[in-house]
Amino acid sequence: MPDLFVGVDVGGTSVKCALSGPDGKVFHEGSIPTESHEGPEAVLKRIGDYVTFLTNDIGGRPAALGMGLPGLVDAHKGISRYLPNMTTHWRDVPAAAILGRQLGCEVRLLNDVRMATYGELIYGLGKPVNTMVFIAIGTGIGGGIVIDNKLRLGPLGAAGELGHQTIDPTGPLCGCGNHGCLETLASGTALAAEGIRLMLVGMAPALHDAVDGDPGKVTVEVMGAVAEQDEPVKQAIQHAAFYIAIGVANVVVAIHPELVVIGGGVAKLGDLLLGPIRHDVRARVGRLFPVDDIRIENSQLGSKAGVLGAIALAIHGLPA
Amino acid sequence: MPDLFVGVDVGGTSVKCALSGPDGKVFHEGSIPTESHEGPEAVLKRIGDYVTFLTNDIGGRPAALGMGLPGLVDAHKGISRYLPNMTTHWRDVPAAAILGRQLGCEVRLLNDVRMATYGELIYGLGKPVNTMVFIAIGTGIGGGIVIDNKLRLGPLGAAGELGHQTIDPTGPLCGCGNHGCLETLASGTALAAEGIRLMLVGMAPALHDAVDGDPGKVTVEVMGAVAEQDEPVKQAIQHAAFYIAIGVANVVVAIHPELVVIGGGVAKLGDLLLGPIRHDVRARVGRLFPVDDIRIENSQLGSKAGVLGAIALAIHGLPA
Repeated sequence: MPDLFVGVDVGGTSVKCALSGPDGKVFHEGSIPTESHEGPEAVLKRIGDYVTFLTNDIGGRPAALGMGLPGLVDAHKGISRYLPNMTTHWRDVPAAAILGRQLGCEVRLLNDVRMATYGELIYGLGKPVNTMVFIAIGTGIGGGIVIDNKLRLGPLGAAGELGHQTIDPTGPLCGCGNHGCLETLASGTALAAEGIRLMLVGMAPALHDAVDGDPGKVTVEVMGAVAEQDEPVKQAIQHAAFYIAIGVANVVVAIHPELVVIGGGVAKLGDLLLGPIRHDVRARVGRLFPVDDIRIENSQLGSKAGVLGAIALAIHGLPA
Repeated sequence: MPDLFVGVDVGGTSVKCALSGPDGKVFHEGSIPTESHEGPEAVLKRIGDYVTFLTNDIGGRPAALGMGLPGLVDAHKGISRYLPNMTTHWRDVPAAAILGRQLGCEVRLLNDVRMATYGELIYGLGKPVNTMVFIAIGTGIGGGIVIDNKLRLGPLGAAGELGHQTIDPTGPLCGCGNHGCLETLASGTALAAEGIRLMLVGMAPALHDAVDGDPGKVTVEVMGAVAEQDEPVKQAIQHAAFYIAIGVANVVVAIHPELVVIGGGVAKLGDLLLGPIRHDVRARVGRLFPVDDIRIENSQLGSKAGVLGAIALAIHGLPA
């Protein structure tokens, strides 16, 4: 039976899964619903069953599995310390041990955005670079930092939490307990909320039409689609970019990376978001030192960065 | 003739100089005035003459020299790219080549605060740690980052410019061209300026007495001495700590260091500054991940960190 390496990326609504051989070439991708309300044991059981189904189907056995989870993950101990995004919160769930027992293989955990950073490093834009900052803008804002070609994890795997930089010292309350984190100002959630506000006060007629006036249907994607008609919606996106650029600029002055990769769902806004970010980072840092050599790009792997990172983690293990 | 290693730390008013043997044990320290108005060639010539005098006196020859300079230093090319703090600005001065020619030895440059970080790493609190953030609060605010026991320089030696994190997006104009850099809000200069304001509006009578009402005599040191009598002065110091804590917290979430070292002249305020910094960093980051294991300490080497780092650089060379 051939050795299979398994990558798993657990999101709030779906669990992505990929299989590869020892060469890292992915030959299967699929997904199942997360059903997070069932709690961690049930979610992990369903993941295990799905992996077993896939590997049996191929006629191989799982040699190792990498799994990305949102929230605080103790990568070295394989424990989900705190996962607040699920309907049922996870606290101190030894997910690696639970899943490893079911599958009979080593299971390695990592925070989902650090995993996506690893994916981008091994399979994406990060391949030729030495120093990279990854920032994923979705429901929340996460990040990862690569220095000397190595994913920088810190003692808990928590280094790279770029969404929790304080950008507005007295700003909105964040889920982490702090005020004015980048995530409270420029995540997809924050941006959609601002879109809803604009719609409700009558400043976004095209957005109103696009969602039939239903706040529950306002997404960043729809906002991007109407931005050319609703100037205030465009300004809201630029305002998010203004804050993201500050977060990026602050990491740039600290570590002077070669490459900054913007990932996550909000990155799909493309140049509408990336244009002002590039401009503002240059304006904030450019006279301090040359930033023309610092590339700021959208993720090459997009939504697959996480599951590909998980494959890489399954094969290569955690950086020393 | 024994081989001597020379450390030089160039400041706005004085140039510190230290000598050691190959073992790094310092057996001489001295200083000369910078006289920066004379321009770079004259300043470098005087440094060279002083080093020659010292080494001749001991009967040895300089084997290598490390020199810390303020501003933007291209560490790899040995060029002072931009040194704005001197009376005569330096631009693209090949200081390593000029001084090396005079002394007949290799000369290695580094930004002064990165040099102090290196000093703290090799001779001070950094010895037992793997990951350290150094932040020097003086006339300006500089920094240095150590990851995996290695000083992180970036392609130009400019990584670690923590004073140029944007803390208040629309805040005061910074010398770097940006607005609201940490340096504009919490440097010794900014803090003294706030002390002057408080004195001039009559809110700091003890400070007024201490300096005979002369704004030119207001320093952070004097402010510290009167802080118990002038509550507004104490609050000004705490307000600077509030901003410094944000800068520290933002680096902490990015790289999760073991140790944060506060250096520079303002660090002499001791617990008056360090107390609120420790409290605020904990409050901002503590619910995201445990910060009890992150030590925040005053520099062990104080004003000698730079010249000792220069000795270390002379002996060991730049980190790869």
